[in-house]
Amino acid sequence: MTMNHSIDPAVAALLPLAKKEGIATVWDRYKAMQPQCGFGQLGVCCRICWKGPCRIDPFGDGPQRGICGADADTIVARNVIRMIASGAASHSEHGRHVALALLGVAEGKLPDYRIRDEEKLRAVAAKLGLETDGKEIPAIAREVALATLGDFQNQDHDTPCTWLASTLTEKRLERLAGLHALPHNIDAVVTQILARTHVGCDADPANLILGGVKGALADYDGMCLATELSDVLFGTPRPAVTAANLGVLKEDAVNIAVHGHNPLLSEVVCDLALLMDDEARRAGAAGGINIVGICCTGNEVMVRHGIPLATNYLSQEMALVTGAVDAMVVDVQCIMPSVSEIGACFHTEIITTMDDNRIPGATHVRFRETTAAENAREIVSLAIAAFRRRNPQRVVIPDFRQTAVVGFGTEAIVGALAALNADDPLKPLIDSIANGSIRGIALFAGCNNTRTTQDSSFVTMAKKLARNNVLLLATGCGAGSFAKHGLMTQEATEEHAGDSLKGVLTAVGTAAGLGGPLPLVLHMGSCVDNSRAVEVAVAVANRLGVDLDQLPLVASAPEAMSEKAVAIGTWSVALGIPTHLGTMPQVTGSPAVTELLTETAKDLLGGYFMVELDPDKAADRLLAVIDERRQGLGI
Amino acid sequence: MTMNHSIDPAVAALLPLAKKEGIATVWDRYKAMQPQCGFGQLGVCCRICWKGPCRIDPFGDGPQRGICGADADTIVARNVIRMIASGAASHSEHGRHVALALLGVAEGKLPDYRIRDEEKLRAVAAKLGLETDGKEIPAIAREVALATLGDFQNQDHDTPCTWLASTLTEKRLERLAGLHALPHNIDAVVTQILARTHVGCDADPANLILGGVKGALADYDGMCLATELSDVLFGTPRPAVTAANLGVLKEDAVNIAVHGHNPLLSEVVCDLALLMDDEARRAGAAGGINIVGICCTGNEVMVRHGIPLATNYLSQEMALVTGAVDAMVVDVQCIMPSVSEIGACFHTEIITTMDDNRIPGATHVRFRETTAAENAREIVSLAIAAFRRRNPQRVVIPDFRQTAVVGFGTEAIVGALAALNADDPLKPLIDSIANGSIRGIALFAGCNNTRTTQDSSFVTMAKKLARNNVLLLATGCGAGSFAKHGLMTQEATEEHAGDSLKGVLTAVGTAAGLGGPLPLVLHMGSCVDNSRAVEVAVAVANRLGVDLDQLPLVASAPEAMSEKAVAIGTWSVALGIPTHLGTMPQVTGSPAVTELLTETAKDLLGGYFMVELDPDKAADRLLAVIDERRQGLGI
Repeated sequence: MTMNHSIDPAVAALLPLAKKEGIATVWDRYKAMQPQCGFGQLGVCCRICWKGPCRIDPFGDGPQRGICGADADTIVARNVIRMIASGAASHSEHGRHVALALLGVAEGKLPDYRIRDEEKLRAVAAKLGLETDGKEIPAIAREVALATLGDFQNQDHDTPCTWLASTLTEKRLERLAGLHALPHNIDAVVTQILARTHVGCDADPANLILGGVKGALADYDGMCLATELSDVLFGTPRPAVTAANLGVLKEDAVNIAVHGHNPLLSEVVCDLALLMDDEARRAGAAGGINIVGICCTGNEVMVRHGIPLATNYLSQEMALVTGAVDAMVVDVQCIMPSVSEIGACFHTEIITTMDDNRIPGATHVRFRETTAAENAREIVSLAIAAFRRRNPQRVVIPDFRQTAVVGFGTEAIVGALAALNADDPLKPLIDSIANGSIRGIALFAGCNNTRTTQDSSFVTMAKKLARNNVLLLATGCGAGSFAKHGLMTQEATEEHAGDSLKGVLTAVGTAAGLGGPLPLVLHMGSCVDNSRAVEVAVAVANRLGVDLDQLPLVASAPEAMSEKAVAIGTWSVALGIPTHLGTMPQVTGSPAVTELLTETAKDLLGGYFMVELDPDKAADRLLAVIDERRQGLGI
Repeated sequence: MTMNHSIDPAVAALLPLAKKEGIATVWDRYKAMQPQCGFGQLGVCCRICWKGPCRIDPFGDGPQRGICGADADTIVARNVIRMIASGAASHSEHGRHVALALLGVAEGKLPDYRIRDEEKLRAVAAKLGLETDGKEIPAIAREVALATLGDFQNQDHDTPCTWLASTLTEKRLERLAGLHALPHNIDAVVTQILARTHVGCDADPANLILGGVKGALADYDGMCLATELSDVLFGTPRPAVTAANLGVLKEDAVNIAVHGHNPLLSEVVCDLALLMDDEARRAGAAGGINIVGICCTGNEVMVRHGIPLATNYLSQEMALVTGAVDAMVVDVQCIMPSVSEIGACFHTEIITTMDDNRIPGATHVRFRETTAAENAREIVSLAIAAFRRRNPQRVVIPDFRQTAVVGFGTEAIVGALAALNADDPLKPLIDSIANGSIRGIALFAGCNNTRTTQDSSFVTMAKKLARNNVLLLATGCGAGSFAKHGLMTQEATEEHAGDSLKGVLTAVGTAAGLGGPLPLVLHMGSCVDNSRAVEVAVAVANRLGVDLDQLPLVASAPEAMSEKAVAIGTWSVALGIPTHLGTMPQVTGSPAVTELLTETAKDLLGGYFMVELDPDKAADRLLAVIDERRQGLGI
């Protein structure tokens, strides 16, 4: 193991401290887990029934079929589409939660929430084909919420999910319908994936993978509605200047880290923190309350309110090792169970909030939308109480923080472009693509993974693509990487962008009043916010009269790890986007499935997976794909 | 491996033939798979994200936490509740399919189906609290179907699923509500299990297991509605005399094996076979068309129409080895992918019918309810064409067939009891339990598993329990075992029942006009039909004013294998029933989860899992539990 753990200087600064304190981190556990099971890595281990576990010998000497008769192709395909189902379930649970909250607000049942962006609500209603003329905001909100919940209720297989049908190109919808891949109901499609992968069901790898594509599109639907309705409730992202990395923690403040994914919790914690700032000062925190974000909750509050980001997934434990976090408040997804044990080594309150997501050893504050402010008050009080117990001798906040200009949702990007052409905001973007000033667009998404050096692939790829005039968008832990490493700044544009890209970013940024270029990487939000990038792409495709698989647009998840990432990557492919993975997907035990995902998908969907572990080579391959697409368009 | 493969004489007769023909069977693949992965068997292997796979060292020398920090308890709990989710998904997909068909029939859209049991429809409507007075049958059917689909649509967490709430005891519902374990929506609960087990979510083993209990109760809901609505569409089981084991195949007939689970397919195949009998005779089959069942499709058509059962899960390949099966028609679940390869060694058409359940190498006839008769005609035609290609030299039908008296759904049991007491049919049963003539009731359910000698544990336990005057009910592959081994006969009652049980079975059987006792084991149907046993138990509990966990009622799955079985076993426990497993559940890598399922559950739910691999000892333990329950009731 000569690989470095991370290129994040704050991680490097804190790891020796963790070691000294006897605290095991994710990297220690990764090392201890070596060698990892090769069957699992190849995807050829089946634990679907209790006749098993079975595993297929990749060398051909041992069993080539499981006990039931399933071969490597069947087993790999079943395993990977179950991952997609879990990813879709996760995003759409988040989405359902937001939709139900919107319904509650519309019906006057949730006093601690309100509709902060009425304009967005009207735009969403129009997009969904709902009539809004003469209707009051609550009535519109109710209709939007009910139409959205319909995507979890519809039992007619021939009527696709509303959000999906309202947000993709016509050509894409036709193509997916032709493959019977359009989901009609998110929950039902998730259920059907589990059912078809039960012992003795679907054994056809191509059929299974197409079922997975449908599940992935259900994932898209769920994250699309989660994103858009969160904007309605909490505001649509606008450009803001903030900071990232563990240096955003403050010695003299009550530091509350909000961690997880769903803004329903973090927004109200932010609200209460403002109200309780004096209380924190009375407790001796001269700096008051300092909210910082971790993971995608961090991205949510960062793009909407400019809250600083402490760190991304893989280094979440490091935030605790600073000894400066008074409370880590978590909701759902990507929260290492280890945080409760590490928190206990310090004064830190680890506070779980969702009944379905608890951690042994953590303090549980049962969060309900109906009592949100009350619950948030309890959470902030716990943080203030913990601050009183904080041992200043143990506080080590690494002095690393980078400026980050964030908040580039679709509306913000279009708004910036409108400064150049108010009548036709997309024209400057399209012209720049057509004339080659922007060679292509790359969306960076996905997780961190111990299999790669943290943040390294993101940064390496982004710099190379930018130098080659590729416009960069980012979400999730990818966005966290770029923010921490100073690539969301005007200076980064000056330093790393190729000349023609720099020209475009400068023209747009200056016209939009930023006094200089747009940042090198545009922060679009959390991992559910990947739908924002689709919205931009669909707008461009519709404007050009082409489908998504003709655009010089690529996606990359260089450090993909979670089932959510598997789902996102798959819908990205399904939407026609060449999608790079920088970690080895656990499907290579089946040549058939590997070919389906990397080759056959190209014919069926236009998009396909590209696996390349070397970030430098990966950037080259993405550039080649972009050029191929440009050729296809004759530009 | 000195263990015998099976006690089924037909299997013993055919295995040498399979070997001679070079055909690998499930037992060959089981042997080749040894040694199986110990981590998987203990449940401590986690493949939930691509940082992994991780595995916990059961000896304590290696890693005690996965890379994310999850320990053995978390990993085991997540794995097992994902199995429950898949089981619930499978049963409820089957149920949704039937509910949508009922809706189609009600709306006049499915000419090849009709409502065969109007009385049952009215009873179901009444049970669901729907008003039926003055309404026509189609209108009632539509209301029942829509209310049922509501169990897949409801978004209000505080309103439990309709079927569940309509079919359990009040006390049980209160107890489960107190644990927040009542599902409100089958699909949503399945989705939520996947979401809460995503990386970085629920890490609390007790919380996870309670989530699994909710999922299992969603499974109960799904199978309850599947069972009851199937009765409405296809008729409620009535006692019938038929036969079981491979000797039911006929040399001179076109043998069509219907295999899988959902009667929507098999019922129409049976209908068409009647219509096309002459065609088969013209093709040279003097015996016409001979439909036989395999697995739970076999049980469905057996209990409703007395169609003979060829065999159960583990020996499905043996049916093909006879060389006498002209077509094996499959839908969903428990169909070994190996059948297409074995079918190809003979003339046999393996016909898949469901788009989500295909097998490479099989012939796919896309089955649609809207074109059911047309599709079934194609299927039967394929079988007749295959018969013409059959090589009589290769036909070896082992001369083993046992009489089976089957068809004991709730209505049939109550009907038989009514012959003794028309005003109060439950009274003879309750009196017999109270006076000890019936010591207790045992439900045998679940699969076959290569880890045990096929059918052996079922037969051993049943004989011992019957000798000790325990009334025996059976479903699924358990029922298949008993049917094949002659335990569903009056002779078996004479031979194996204890004196007092024999007395009761004889009194009821004679009064009901059977000219002798009821069979030793009452065949209640397929694995979804386990809800029938609950219906009987709830009726008895309500009549006595007690809850289910007070009844001298036990369940056993001596050869459990599938995720569906995991779900069924868990709801059995949740309903208060001590539930025996004769195969080792893959949870023992977590002492905490093991204790939750076998001990803590007792306090929380009244029911609990009992693991005992030795069938003789298992019977003793069940008798002890029955006696404990009797003591509790003071009888």
